Amino acid sequence: MANNETMIINGIAASSGIVISKAYRLENVTLDVEKKSVTDLKSEVERFETALLKSKTELTQIKDHAKRELGEDKAAIFAAHLLVLSDPELVKPIKDKIVSEKVNAEFALNEISQMFITMFEQMDNEYMKERAADIRDVVQRVLSHLLGVKISNPKEISEEVIVVATDLTPSDTAQLDRNFVKGFVTDIGGRTSHSAIMARSMEIPAVVGTQSIMANVSNGEIVILDGIEGKIIINPDQETLAQYTDKKKRFEEQKLEWAKLVNEKTVTNDQHHVELAANIGTPNDVKGVLENGAEGIGLYRTEFLYMGRSDFPSEEEQYNAYKTVLESMEGKPVVVRTLDIGGDKELSYLSLPHELNPFLGFRAIRLCLEETAIFRTQLRALLRASKFGNLKIMFPMIATLDEFRQAKAILLEEKGKLVNEGIEVLEKIEIGIMVEIPSTAIMANVFAKEVDFFSIGTNDLIQYTMAADRMNEKVSYLYQPYNPAILRLVDMVIKAAHGENKWVGMCGEMAGDEIAIPLLLGLGLDEFSMSATSILPARSQLKQLTKTEAKTLAQKALLMNTAEEVMTLVKEVF
Amino acid sequence: MANNETMIINGIAASSGIVISKAYRLENVTLDVEKKSVTDLKSEVERFETALLKSKTELTQIKDHAKRELGEDKAAIFAAHLLVLSDPELVKPIKDKIVSEKVNAEFALNEISQMFITMFEQMDNEYMKERAADIRDVVQRVLSHLLGVKISNPKEISEEVIVVATDLTPSDTAQLDRNFVKGFVTDIGGRTSHSAIMARSMEIPAVVGTQSIMANVSNGEIVILDGIEGKIIINPDQETLAQYTDKKKRFEEQKLEWAKLVNEKTVTNDQHHVELAANIGTPNDVKGVLENGAEGIGLYRTEFLYMGRSDFPSEEEQYNAYKTVLESMEGKPVVVRTLDIGGDKELSYLSLPHELNPFLGFRAIRLCLEETAIFRTQLRALLRASKFGNLKIMFPMIATLDEFRQAKAILLEEKGKLVNEGIEVLEKIEIGIMVEIPSTAIMANVFAKEVDFFSIGTNDLIQYTMAADRMNEKVSYLYQPYNPAILRLVDMVIKAAHGENKWVGMCGEMAGDEIAIPLLLGLGLDEFSMSATSILPARSQLKQLTKTEAKTLAQKALLMNTAEEVMTLVKEVF
Repeated sequence: MANNETMIINGIAASSGIVISKAYRLENVTLDVEKKSVTDLKSEVERFETALLKSKTELTQIKDHAKRELGEDKAAIFAAHLLVLSDPELVKPIKDKIVSEKVNAEFALNEISQMFITMFEQMDNEYMKERAADIRDVVQRVLSHLLGVKISNPKEISEEVIVVATDLTPSDTAQLDRNFVKGFVTDIGGRTSHSAIMARSMEIPAVVGTQSIMANVSNGEIVILDGIEGKIIINPDQETLAQYTDKKKRFEEQKLEWAKLVNEKTVTNDQHHVELAANIGTPNDVKGVLENGAEGIGLYRTEFLYMGRSDFPSEEEQYNAYKTVLESMEGKPVVVRTLDIGGDKELSYLSLPHELNPFLGFRAIRLCLEETAIFRTQLRALLRASKFGNLKIMFPMIATLDEFRQAKAILLEEKGKLVNEGIEVLEKIEIGIMVEIPSTAIMANVFAKEVDFFSIGTNDLIQYTMAADRMNEKVSYLYQPYNPAILRLVDMVIKAAHGENKWVGMCGEMAGDEIAIPLLLGLGLDEFSMSATSILPARSQLKQLTKTEAKTLAQKALLMNTAEEVMTLVKEVF
Repeated sequence: MANNETMIINGIAASSGIVISKAYRLENVTLDVEKKSVTDLKSEVERFETALLKSKTELTQIKDHAKRELGEDKAAIFAAHLLVLSDPELVKPIKDKIVSEKVNAEFALNEISQMFITMFEQMDNEYMKERAADIRDVVQRVLSHLLGVKISNPKEISEEVIVVATDLTPSDTAQLDRNFVKGFVTDIGGRTSHSAIMARSMEIPAVVGTQSIMANVSNGEIVILDGIEGKIIINPDQETLAQYTDKKKRFEEQKLEWAKLVNEKTVTNDQHHVELAANIGTPNDVKGVLENGAEGIGLYRTEFLYMGRSDFPSEEEQYNAYKTVLESMEGKPVVVRTLDIGGDKELSYLSLPHELNPFLGFRAIRLCLEETAIFRTQLRALLRASKFGNLKIMFPMIATLDEFRQAKAILLEEKGKLVNEGIEVLEKIEIGIMVEIPSTAIMANVFAKEVDFFSIGTNDLIQYTMAADRMNEKVSYLYQPYNPAILRLVDMVIKAAHGENKWVGMCGEMAGDEIAIPLLLGLGLDEFSMSATSILPARSQLKQLTKTEAKTLAQKALLMNTAEEVMTLVKEVF
């Protein structure tokens, strides 16, 4: 923003809360290298050495900071980077090339390093492939010094900031350190994009889909992020600052009010109990879950264990993660969803076929039933961890009864093996499925005879039922949680489950939505699983509702013609 | 195939019938051009002139052939190509470049023509952009002569052949001349791929998804194509040849048996009448529709009018096409589906956003409601043509009642305008929708109050309901027409429609499927629309069924657990 002018930018409220802090732009810069002839070879070599030195100093600082803030473990990667910079096998050929070919340092660096990168990448060894990525990272850093361009890296943030970016991938988001990143704003994305879901799970206020934040904010400018209204104010004047400091205070007071409900059960005004659970991505999220008084974990998305790394997590690593979560939850139910990879979630070390329509493709249980080794490792880890808490296992993207039967058979086979090996496994583990594909909702009465529970995944269920990609802005108007078609499917699933004395949860975004909650209560939903930060507001809302009134409301809603009519109805009644 | 050995290749039966003919390989060759220094410049220029001359001779032959077989109209493009080859503004600079830069003819041709192509492409004028495409085509031809590489072109086929290709795009298929192309075989594709649907619509026997035909057949080899079993035999021995000549004869006799039903109504054994209609892509398909005794057209896919051209068809062009179809059908119902573009169907002259999941994206009615000018032109053409027959208009990809209301409002607005302009429009035109999105099937009772009819599009309905891209081989096992979830949706739609005295058709592939027909009859389907070639076999099958038995069967099928159970049930009963 030129002249420190105040500017207001509207976006989509993705995670609530208010932050006032400095902007930190996270950019993907492309560093273009041209080949140039050089005459003063001595000073060109010196220029290269200076860039090397600057990079080393920088990396040492980052390493020390990471060690202090994140532990030895996380700092190791930077030590490895420092080693690359001191490796004569890389550095010497670059200097030689500058001199012998009379070319600029950038070009020589690029050519030589590319040779190494290609060589390492072609090796059939995950460790060596990882080295290729390290070299690429380090070369980028040296190049940026040679070219005088600043590159940014989420891992390097070491003061309180609001991260601003065009977009954040799930792994970008996973790398954000919540000690420093107090909020984030992106130009792309909607309320159900992964970065938005992650923000809620990490309890970082966020606004997404602003379309113009990157064009308007500079590094270090003061920004107000209003994650309640979905608004960004760049360079606020004193009055606005005061106003938002006040709003922030009120929001925090409201949170204190909600906080009083933290140890209460969730009971409606007419004494009907429902369970409020939380969705988590990593064991680190459990802290927030407990602080927000969740009665359990309704969805543990295990794919984050597999992301941002160079190979599959071992059985042992997984076992430890699951054990940590189960122990921390102290006997409260923990519903773990088995690996849901594919679609828009890729793993660098698992090559999947390129698909024309990845959301309708080879993902989740479809992949696990083919790549059974991956699946079995996860199931073994889960089964071994089961004795540390109240584990329930859930399969994602089940479309047919056959798939469920296959998945369950593999689970029971692994359980049998463990028992034979003398390893203790929880006797009774509930086995359920995500209901996120229309066929499964429609066939719920058939499934209800064989599963222990359902969890309705509305994010996907809505996009398949409406045939509209929720990430595609051109058709996002069709992402309609209140469309009566969706309510009818939910109704079908709940009726079918209760007919067989099974319970039904919901772990999509809809479960924490203020307008949806009375409808879902009325339809008879047993468990609502949402972002941890939504739990106390939801508990507060549910305390004021009565099941009887909600039932009448839901029956009316099922007969409405459109999503708008449903929304109007709910707003009229409450 | 080396040594003329006999070889059997299995694929997917895509369009029935048996052909014995020569193979014609349709290949997409990439012509690589290298820059070379040339010393004998005179003979290099001569080499270029010879290639030009060969290309001209070839083009003249193609032009004459096209004129004879397809009319003056279709031949014009080749006259334009001949003009390009004689244009001194293109030819002279190429010769100059060979001489002045001492380079090979291929390189000079490529560089100069690329300059013109870029220039024309950048002009904001559709006509000029089309010129760029012409130059590219012609340059390919000259290049092929310079390099001594044969390129193939479906338009050039002038003797009876079986076309063999890796894949055929819808526009490739549209260019095939059924006088010469007696069948086709592709390595890629399934029963519901567009080329397969086109093959049935053009009544050309076809086998798709062979995976290995291109690797095994040479041009001119004798091939038996068995479109009933999905089998290809390359270089058959005398015995096999005799056997298939016999099978071909029997199939033709069977067709003669069926042909006796051509003027009969479709009546079950217990005197229940259903309507058998045909799916068409272009007015040329009407001949086959009438020859196969269809009682109407249940789906006219108008997008083919928009394909394989350089700009939108004018209102007049569309009017003529619709008028031709309506007149030819002599008062029998013709259900025209408005433009269904987007998804996997692209137009070169309409730039659409790149989508991650095109099947869940901006297509069909979604696009028409935004690009209303395109939509209004089509509706006006349809309304003007309406007086020539029994027109019914159907909107594709309707997901919400709002979309239907909007589309209908635009239609009525255009109708009002035409009436004001004094143009005659059929008073009563039925307005219906495709039911191909789960939400619409689930909300059918709401839609039934406002639409005049439904047509269930099972190809898309199945892929959305099962969340599986039918083109994606990794998940094609989930494309399950007999899944009870699909039958339940069909049941919902039919019950809802009959409750409001509306009729229900089906225009997906399922409507012509031998196993599905008894189920659909039992569920109460009113109209079955299929490939023209399936009509007489279906009529023959329906004559042997009774509605009463079919009803019992369908009720049982609705209670089955899996698609396999349904299939077994139908096979047991019949």
